[in-house]
Amino acid sequence: MSSESLDQSIEAIALVDHHVHGASGNDLSRAEFEELITESDRPVPGWMSQFDSQIGFAILRHCAPVLGLDPHAPPDAYMARRAELGAAEVNRRLLTASGIGHFLVETGYRGDEILGTAGMAEVTGRPAEEVVRLEAVAEQVVSEGVSAAGFAARFAELLWKRSRTARGLKTIVAYRHGLDLDPSPPTPAEVTAAAGRWLRAIEETATVRVDDPVLLRHLIWTGIERGLPLQFHIGYGDPDVDLHRSDPLLLRGLIERAEPSGVPLLLLHCYPFHRNAGYLAQVYPNVYFDVGLGVNYTGARSVAVVAESLELAPFAKILFSSDAWGPAELHHLGALLWRRAMTRVLGGFVAGGEWSPAQAVRVATMIGEDNARRVYRLGDDA
Amino acid sequence: MSSESLDQSIEAIALVDHHVHGASGNDLSRAEFEELITESDRPVPGWMSQFDSQIGFAILRHCAPVLGLDPHAPPDAYMARRAELGAAEVNRRLLTASGIGHFLVETGYRGDEILGTAGMAEVTGRPAEEVVRLEAVAEQVVSEGVSAAGFAARFAELLWKRSRTARGLKTIVAYRHGLDLDPSPPTPAEVTAAAGRWLRAIEETATVRVDDPVLLRHLIWTGIERGLPLQFHIGYGDPDVDLHRSDPLLLRGLIERAEPSGVPLLLLHCYPFHRNAGYLAQVYPNVYFDVGLGVNYTGARSVAVVAESLELAPFAKILFSSDAWGPAELHHLGALLWRRAMTRVLGGFVAGGEWSPAQAVRVATMIGEDNARRVYRLGDDA
Amino acid sequence: MSSESLDQSIEAIALVDHHVHGASGNDLSRAEFEELITESDRPVPGWMSQFDSQIGFAILRHCAPVLGLDPHAPPDAYMARRAELGAAEVNRRLLTASGIGHFLVETGYRGDEILGTAGMAEVTGRPAEEVVRLEAVAEQVVSEGVSAAGFAARFAELLWKRSRTARGLKTIVAYRHGLDLDPSPPTPAEVTAAAGRWLRAIEETATVRVDDPVLLRHLIWTGIERGLPLQFHIGYGDPDVDLHRSDPLLLRGLIERAEPSGVPLLLLHCYPFHRNAGYLAQVYPNVYFDVGLGVNYTGARSVAVVAESLELAPFAKILFSSDAWGPAELHHLGALLWRRAMTRVLGGFVAGGEWSPAQAVRVATMIGEDNARRVYRLGDDA
Repeated sequence: MSSESLDQSIEAIALVDHHVHGASGNDLSRAEFEELITESDRPVPGWMSQFDSQIGFAILRHCAPVLGLDPHAPPDAYMARRAELGAAEVNRRLLTASGIGHFLVETGYRGDEILGTAGMAEVTGRPAEEVVRLEAVAEQVVSEGVSAAGFAARFAELLWKRSRTARGLKTIVAYRHGLDLDPSPPTPAEVTAAAGRWLRAIEETATVRVDDPVLLRHLIWTGIERGLPLQFHIGYGDPDVDLHRSDPLLLRGLIERAEPSGVPLLLLHCYPFHRNAGYLAQVYPNVYFDVGLGVNYTGARSVAVVAESLELAPFAKILFSSDAWGPAELHHLGALLWRRAMTRVLGGFVAGGEWSPAQAVRVATMIGEDNARRVYRLGDDA
Repeated sequence: MSSESLDQSIEAIALVDHHVHGASGNDLSRAEFEELITESDRPVPGWMSQFDSQIGFAILRHCAPVLGLDPHAPPDAYMARRAELGAAEVNRRLLTASGIGHFLVETGYRGDEILGTAGMAEVTGRPAEEVVRLEAVAEQVVSEGVSAAGFAARFAELLWKRSRTARGLKTIVAYRHGLDLDPSPPTPAEVTAAAGRWLRAIEETATVRVDDPVLLRHLIWTGIERGLPLQFHIGYGDPDVDLHRSDPLLLRGLIERAEPSGVPLLLLHCYPFHRNAGYLAQVYPNVYFDVGLGVNYTGARSVAVVAESLELAPFAKILFSSDAWGPAELHHLGALLWRRAMTRVLGGFVAGGEWSPAQAVRVATMIGEDNARRVYRLGDDA
Repeated sequence: MSSESLDQSIEAIALVDHHVHGASGNDLSRAEFEELITESDRPVPGWMSQFDSQIGFAILRHCAPVLGLDPHAPPDAYMARRAELGAAEVNRRLLTASGIGHFLVETGYRGDEILGTAGMAEVTGRPAEEVVRLEAVAEQVVSEGVSAAGFAARFAELLWKRSRTARGLKTIVAYRHGLDLDPSPPTPAEVTAAAGRWLRAIEETATVRVDDPVLLRHLIWTGIERGLPLQFHIGYGDPDVDLHRSDPLLLRGLIERAEPSGVPLLLLHCYPFHRNAGYLAQVYPNVYFDVGLGVNYTGARSVAVVAESLELAPFAKILFSSDAWGPAELHHLGALLWRRAMTRVLGGFVAGGEWSPAQAVRVATMIGEDNARRVYRLGDDA
């Protein structure tokens, strides 16, 4: 097998993007666009441009041609062309060219600003199914009105209802507390007391945001009881996360307690702790991981990140995701940079005489598609 | 010097494997074999194979030819050939082809299931000397019957006896507590009190396992008093280790307190904290480290791990080990992957004009053989 | 653009070394020299040489030709030639050949043993401006005599005076406490109480060393009030640092509290936490970082360290420094290894079709020169 044929085989994988959000349906100004191609939630300072970054260069290199421009187009030309085509056409081009064959869409973050599962399926012509964010369900419960004593029952009821056709659940406990939390499920009395504290805080602050560790633990354990694969935000993200408390090694106690349930735990992103995630995926049968998000934001360096993800973990435990949110460039690059990195890394193993070409294609297909199909039972009735 | 000649020079090094366990003397079923080529202690799930991993691919690539098969043999063919040859012949072929010239065998883990030092010497025709595990000695002391007040004296007596001809000692405090322990030696009264607690716990649980931090500290400080080089399990290992508490940086206090003793402290494995270990090896004269175990389990990626181990540490402070336990494939690959990684990394430095070929050969020989000979005084009477 | 032309463009950058110390004005014995090419503060053991390290090999490879020897000269020949030329000529050759165009000299560490800003400017013919170490100013205040109640006012007064023409401030809180400190400014009463404790300790110990966390916080917050860019020692350094408490992620609280001040916070060195620093530089507008020091001490491996620094951070947030102190080899290599690493890493991006040559040159110039000129307002009146 030549290196072109490995390239072609990897190009042909109908990726399952097992953790993604909707594309933005609106036209975006340059300022808006720049704020969406960084995990920073701060305004971009006047003395810099987010285009001067790995992801910015990757957009100008790889997305510009999809919009009909030369590679390495200047940012202004890129934005002008984007505006000229309009959001719908930009999305259509970038999403279909990504070759993503199946989307598992996490809908819990600012879902009103982006396409939902139906919108994603419509633009791409590919299946899009839902992943439900536990914290968003809890916040919906209290927003609709509930007593402290009624919280647990009402949360379970809404979670089962919201996830009836979902493929997975997601928790952002890393954002709301940190991964260094007591791994045990709280007692019903503790949950009621914590719900009471939360309801009082909402009255005082007029803000609905679940961050009490007792409640977060309750959400997670109820999610495990629900039985769908459970995704964890790990590592890198916006500054709302305390990265020091987002090392997946902190989940050891929870992983061990959840092991008898048989629920797959999927560690998302993981940068810069992806080697730690690979360790957990080797030693615990219920742990999986991906390096989505980090692949996009490291651009030309994503080859190294993907390479580091291919160390300890058995190949059946690694998945692909883009974690794109908003600009369809992120969905496109998530797939493109992953394919490019896998081609270079696995192609290097083959060229060095370490792997056979057939092994390389098989592993790329496992990670790109097969593992997700098995874990999420895609194709089975939801 | 051509790249072939660097290759040949590194191939010719009579490695000192300064931390290794015995090879398995028994034939192994595929299930047994798969459970021994991972650090997981869980059964292998039915939907996956441990052969689908870096180490699995490395076995099929590099060990199959030693058994007379083509590289990249299918797992079933590999296991059939292994059974056909029998464990004794498999061990003979893989161990002698490794080119390991001297084994320092740590005997404290399930020693009855594998070859001991005499068995290893017999199969390989090379010297095999012992490294004694402190925790195993302590557990032997209480298994043979001792009072709380008599524990310290009896432990010292047995340690001196057991290590009479040993080359080094080893502690698995990382497994039994974590490296975040009080660095000071406990007082005799504290040791007696802790021994009493332990003896009562043994009566209650019928399990002999030392994990009290006071006792573990006592074992370590008695080991330092014994004066032999002291190995520490660091980082990656089976799920009994809490990897979050296995960063070698946590040993700083102990390293500084042990410094006046002149006892060499050898940090084993270290993945994924091997850069931290390199830092400690640079700044503390009594600290050494290796990247054994991680080299095996990262397979085609071990080049990167070895490269990262060649950063801060002076070259006199880095050693080679395989940390193999059980299948002789692990001993074989430990040596083969290390040679291959060193050839590629040092060859890259030479090709880039940074190192001279003579420097490359000298450093490979220091790490592969000379440093261990100096630290463990090999060749001197034990 | 050919790879030679990228090489030439990077070679031509008039680097701003935004964190450096003076070169040693004295001739150095081999023992003295070896103790200055490691971060260890221990004597070099007799069984090893610091020349057997990445930095040692880099000196013999790259500095020997500047002194008129062949590359890979033996250490003894190197030291003999160094002595023959004399310190002044060695400094002149190595410093001018470095191509560093502007020095920001941190003067707070053993400043009497090395050249000051004037000396550096004189030897190099290039501007050298000062960075003032907060802790050194505080220690000067108490050495000159002050009451506990008068400490805060006197510290502010001396800091403003000492930094009148300085370009930046520096804190070594990582050495004196660790980065895990309360991020809030202490109250005046707390400062007075802590100053009293310190003054009593000085009387008792006859040692002037500020390490009280209340005082360290006060120094930092006074430094932020002063308004100059503030450098933080991060990560790797001599064994006086507890590396486990030097992860820049521990600064999150302080970074967020300092954000409204608009004061640039510059994370120095960062190895092995440089990816964490890159994360902070992406999400917080006030955070910058470099990988100085680590580049020197990883020698042939510095390509990898520089590559890892080019992941998450926008290119406007990365700077160049050598952190050299003492032997002019460190200044020379800081520049040479950085240029070499940038050429290889960015050249690799260009060769792989990911970046345009013009992007590569622009980013190298931003990191090597432009970012520092903007952050420190070089060229403006101090």
